[in-house]
Amino acid sequence: MLVTLLSLPIVGGSTRAADRLASRGFERASPAPFASGPRDLIVVCHRTPVKVAQGRFRLDNLPDGRVDLLARCASAAIFTSHGVRRETRLWLALQDQSVCLCLDGSTARGMHPDERTLAAAMKRTLAVEHGATSRADTANGWSYHAGGLEHRLRELRQQRPVSRGPRPILQLHEDGEATLQALLAAGAVLVLGDQLGFTSGEEALLASAGARRATVSPRGLLTSHCIVLAHHALDEAEARVGLAASPVE
Amino acid sequence: MLVTLLSLPIVGGSTRAADRLASRGFERASPAPFASGPRDLIVVCHRTPVKVAQGRFRLDNLPDGRVDLLARCASAAIFTSHGVRRETRLWLALQDQSVCLCLDGSTARGMHPDERTLAAAMKRTLAVEHGATSRADTANGWSYHAGGLEHRLRELRQQRPVSRGPRPILQLHEDGEATLQALLAAGAVLVLGDQLGFTSGEEALLASAGARRATVSPRGLLTSHCIVLAHHALDEAEARVGLAASPVE
Repeated sequence: MLVTLLSLPIVGGSTRAADRLASRGFERASPAPFASGPRDLIVVCHRTPVKVAQGRFRLDNLPDGRVDLLARCASAAIFTSHGVRRETRLWLALQDQSVCLCLDGSTARGMHPDERTLAAAMKRTLAVEHGATSRADTANGWSYHAGGLEHRLRELRQQRPVSRGPRPILQLHEDGEATLQALLAAGAVLVLGDQLGFTSGEEALLASAGARRATVSPRGLLTSHCIVLAHHALDEAEARVGLAASPVE
Repeated sequence: MLVTLLSLPIVGGSTRAADRLASRGFERASPAPFASGPRDLIVVCHRTPVKVAQGRFRLDNLPDGRVDLLARCASAAIFTSHGVRRETRLWLALQDQSVCLCLDGSTARGMHPDERTLAAAMKRTLAVEHGATSRADTANGWSYHAGGLEHRLRELRQQRPVSRGPRPILQLHEDGEATLQALLAAGAVLVLGDQLGFTSGEEALLASAGARRATVSPRGLLTSHCIVLAHHALDEAEARVGLAASPVE
């Protein structure tokens, strides 16, 4: 019996990832317009070296420049067992370089959840913006955007259906009081920090955007684990809505 | 302000992991005896090639033989922000090879949560058992054990304090009904499947051990994400106990 709850995905391929996938065709990715409520997650990243932002990092040393952190966040944000979260967009805001990398689940193709494969896709996406030759598989869900957190907040808050109000901003923070479920149900944009948290400027920016704070765990966890918990809260909220909408016999 | 909730750890080192850590001294690890309630997690793994069980896999192709899966489980089981879960033991039962790898948080030293570094530690631990020369950093939390799931269940169920009854077995399963918190509070041993779930023989073994089933998510998730959610349930249960034990003013 296949137990999907506990299984691991291979999306669109078998064992070896980047090399095999390189021979396939991929669509050029661009973030999809807001429709029925995407899950937008912004990770605010600091101290990103120029070489990382230009895609000149080594795949066999991902902790250098904390590319491993970026890759883990991508894996946590997008992958489920044997599939990807099509409704999710992850925004990696590389603050020191005023650049944002987006991984859009709706356009992701042929990915494997290991850190090296995800880092290779990021590296290609970044390098093409800095003179490297584009390949057919350059994008596969990833896209490059100028500007950091401020640009993303402005852009994402404007992406809302006419029938709804502005999207709330939810900052995951150890001092949070808001419950995650309540705000997520309203289509909130989630903002997480990296190992350095948030600068005072980022805190001020989030406060001016009316961000509320929510806590996901009584313990200090990895950013990628916080993403898993945030998804879980949303999944449970959706499951409850689904149950409530089911006919009662 | 450092926000530990959202931060990423570097345990005992800075950026580059395996290479730098290789020059440090590490204790030879062996699983600690059961004392005040360790968190024991068993991941039942299938189709592990001989080359993986003998530590002859390549670090630049971890999806081959699903070493990436093992590494992600290790990262999810052990790491918190800026620290490790000292009370946790992860048992990777490589069923096809009748071998078990253990990562013991109480003896883990100088690790970084990236997949390659964790895989390198596994590779050394496995290779030493198959003729490779031991190095000072071979173990750092990892140990090698003959036998698979059956051996581990027998061993772990015997490790209990005199004052408590036998440790319950909790199988994470999509058809689970038990609540995770209730059983975890009783010092349960958690058993998770890999991408292939459980064989009929493993299901029978778990049933004969009186395993109860629990579900952690309404969606099918990666094994490593299920570990994050299981830890979270335990963390919240512990936090509640802590709150209940606090004096009320």
